[in-house]
Amino acid sequence: MIATEMDLKPNLNAQSEVPLYRQLSEHFKILIDTGLVDRGERLPATRELAGQLGLNRTTVSAAYELLEEEGYISGQVGRGSFVTGGGGRDAGLNWDSVLSAPQVAMRPSVVPGPLISFATSRPSEKLFPLDKFRASCEDVLGSADLASILQLGSPGGYEPLRQYLLDEARTEGVAGPGDDVMITNGCQQALDLIRRVLVRPGDRVGLEDPVYPGLKNLFLQAGADLCGVPVGAEGIDLERLQRVRPKLLMVTPNFQNPTGATIPLESRKSILRMSRDSGTVVVENDMYGSLRYEGKAQPTLKALDTTGDTILLRSFSKISFPGLRVGWVVGPKTFISRMLEAKQLSDLHTDQFSQAVLLRFAQSGRLEAHQANMLVAGAERLLAVRAACELYLPQGARFSRPQGGMNLWITLPEPLDSADLLPRAQRAGVTYLPGRFFAVSEPHAGGLRLSFAGLDPKQIEEGVRLLGHLFSEELDAHTGFDHRPAPAMV
Amino acid sequence: MIATEMDLKPNLNAQSEVPLYRQLSEHFKILIDTGLVDRGERLPATRELAGQLGLNRTTVSAAYELLEEEGYISGQVGRGSFVTGGGGRDAGLNWDSVLSAPQVAMRPSVVPGPLISFATSRPSEKLFPLDKFRASCEDVLGSADLASILQLGSPGGYEPLRQYLLDEARTEGVAGPGDDVMITNGCQQALDLIRRVLVRPGDRVGLEDPVYPGLKNLFLQAGADLCGVPVGAEGIDLERLQRVRPKLLMVTPNFQNPTGATIPLESRKSILRMSRDSGTVVVENDMYGSLRYEGKAQPTLKALDTTGDTILLRSFSKISFPGLRVGWVVGPKTFISRMLEAKQLSDLHTDQFSQAVLLRFAQSGRLEAHQANMLVAGAERLLAVRAACELYLPQGARFSRPQGGMNLWITLPEPLDSADLLPRAQRAGVTYLPGRFFAVSEPHAGGLRLSFAGLDPKQIEEGVRLLGHLFSEELDAHTGFDHRPAPAMV
Repeated sequence: MIATEMDLKPNLNAQSEVPLYRQLSEHFKILIDTGLVDRGERLPATRELAGQLGLNRTTVSAAYELLEEEGYISGQVGRGSFVTGGGGRDAGLNWDSVLSAPQVAMRPSVVPGPLISFATSRPSEKLFPLDKFRASCEDVLGSADLASILQLGSPGGYEPLRQYLLDEARTEGVAGPGDDVMITNGCQQALDLIRRVLVRPGDRVGLEDPVYPGLKNLFLQAGADLCGVPVGAEGIDLERLQRVRPKLLMVTPNFQNPTGATIPLESRKSILRMSRDSGTVVVENDMYGSLRYEGKAQPTLKALDTTGDTILLRSFSKISFPGLRVGWVVGPKTFISRMLEAKQLSDLHTDQFSQAVLLRFAQSGRLEAHQANMLVAGAERLLAVRAACELYLPQGARFSRPQGGMNLWITLPEPLDSADLLPRAQRAGVTYLPGRFFAVSEPHAGGLRLSFAGLDPKQIEEGVRLLGHLFSEELDAHTGFDHRPAPAMV
Repeated sequence: MIATEMDLKPNLNAQSEVPLYRQLSEHFKILIDTGLVDRGERLPATRELAGQLGLNRTTVSAAYELLEEEGYISGQVGRGSFVTGGGGRDAGLNWDSVLSAPQVAMRPSVVPGPLISFATSRPSEKLFPLDKFRASCEDVLGSADLASILQLGSPGGYEPLRQYLLDEARTEGVAGPGDDVMITNGCQQALDLIRRVLVRPGDRVGLEDPVYPGLKNLFLQAGADLCGVPVGAEGIDLERLQRVRPKLLMVTPNFQNPTGATIPLESRKSILRMSRDSGTVVVENDMYGSLRYEGKAQPTLKALDTTGDTILLRSFSKISFPGLRVGWVVGPKTFISRMLEAKQLSDLHTDQFSQAVLLRFAQSGRLEAHQANMLVAGAERLLAVRAACELYLPQGARFSRPQGGMNLWITLPEPLDSADLLPRAQRAGVTYLPGRFFAVSEPHAGGLRLSFAGLDPKQIEEGVRLLGHLFSEELDAHTGFDHRPAPAMV
């Protein structure tokens, strides 16, 4: 017999980062694995179960599809879905018990259809200088070194690129005599390698709060003791940092992801002083540093650090082609030599052809020319998103004022929850990442990130207009007041 | 005062995988960090210390250079080397205490100069079809998809390539309806991701013994309980496997690295049966499978496995261009979905341009044409290395008879130790990797790997001739007999 309606009633949480259909499929998997639902039983029809649980029918269908994909059930046209067994195959492994703990879901599901997407912090591909890329490829294809570029390389990276980046870092004053450079597959791999060589379970790691989820999830999986340090308009809260005294501090002084905040010079110095006092290893993520559209650049922590201990991360991803995974790390030689061991075990070395192409792209001046274009385009987009926020966000909503980078952070007034509102936003034709995805110690329920760099100014205006309208409506419904923004005075 | 000679006397081990100069520098670091040697003290002159310790003077110099690089000492011309402090910079971090446990050294140091190198299992770059590579690049550069290829991708890989490999795996019968495919940065990253999702500290992992060190070191760092399963001419020892009952078994059925051994059909079936009984996850490394130069191909474990649980690893590295890091994994969907989470945290996704180029390389038939050439060249090299081993190795030495792949394994008669002989071999102009590098549970002191694929037949003959001469001489010195091989009878 199929389990009763009571047994089936899952404990679903619409607030969770895990989408409902996935929660539902997990629930069924447990019922099947534990034998509460037997092999051969028919599951309720999607319409029926959706009615019972008060869910959208597509949610139930998606859960059933997942169960079918994973071999738990099998659908027969006109007859319904039948339980075929836990894990699907006779006498095979129980994968759920074999696999280590699952990762938290990384991103919300996105409804299909054309959307204005503020969800991804990446440059617009319309801005890619394809001819300059082709020319750089041709240079490498015509080079006498082509065969050796295609041969097995070394963990530190393609040596001419590594040397170029080291020279550049020395010229800029971010690499001292005790420093070395290594290449990674973008910034994400640098973070992962740092986790390997520096973080043991229980180690206290200070993270900006809110923070990029790919960073949080990485350290969470490593069993680190994560301490969120709140990020305000002027970067991380120094008083909180003083109390946290982490073993490792991950900090993004320029145009932080997701808030867009930049840390002023004096605070940079304070961070270094505090970290020195507490024996904290400082990792400076400078992904966005060269994308400053206005205001004056501040020196990096790495350049300010007289001990030379700061680790600096940079990448070509945001300033050229994200599909080529090439970043680099500047840090003390002892540290880099341990990182190289981790890199070798991780994937031997980074793709050499892309390294060689990016070296040509940089050496030929094409990168510089492209960056100049990126700065013009970025400035337009930044103006557009700020203007649209001023114009369309409801009274009570706040938003950050980045001077560069790719992200702006909105804080909605209570009781609005950006995760709850996301499905409606998507139906209206816009998507974003809700604050909860970036949460470390605080929930950031009212926060949301607008990644504006991948859109053109018109899309930005239209997207923010739609969001502003939705947020105002929702706020009105909660309070009975009219929250539409007053007409701009200027 | 400088510590006395007794204090300084380090406990050096010439048998260790860690080079002597590095052992010596570690010894000094401890003396400096613990204060046994004070800041400002002068270290003994290299000549003096070399004499005291019975070391080569260059070993001592190399140790001092490393200490200087890492900021422990500072050399002044004509005055000697002075201790500047632990970690080098005032009030900075003590990196040695901050970093997690160091990795074992991966490779022996190689003396500079032109060498016939049997040390790396990779194809010869002389065989790279550069024109075919260029043509594949041009196809991608001219494609309408170029901008999206250069944009941020997805963790599973460049979708057209992923789909191509999945279709191919289905056609070949290695992917069933419950399987999926994902792209990795070559095979090494697949191993690393598998470690992440399947291995917890203390888990028993069965490895071939001897085995590729990049595999052993990876699981060693993860705190796994490594159990070596001896590899003979017909692959792993089934009786031993029966007793080991690992959680995870890593196995290379075709042309295993380092032995070149291939597992016969019946043993493949037995491995699957045993693994099913013991609930073992089987990972089949099939890096070399398509490089069969003679004999009949056997079906993969994955194709034979009726449960569908086997995980299959393949790569473009050995069959095309190792400098492009593109491999793939075929496995059950539940497993692959967890692998994708690990991949995303690891480095977001694999380089997309290289994936697109390799897809064109395969789709255009260029890969197939190149593989045909590789098989002809490989067969010549295999014949050359086998013939040279017959001709030049001393009596009492044994060697494997691979039918494909890139590696052949020699076992020298006792008491010869291939690690001890390596410096002499390098002085004679040849290098290889000694058996100890591949050891899991047995030392393999007399073993050594000849990676023959990167050399041409003449170099192979000359290299084996030099080695044979050296080994014969050494054996004569030990026994007083003449071990030169008898002239060939055919």
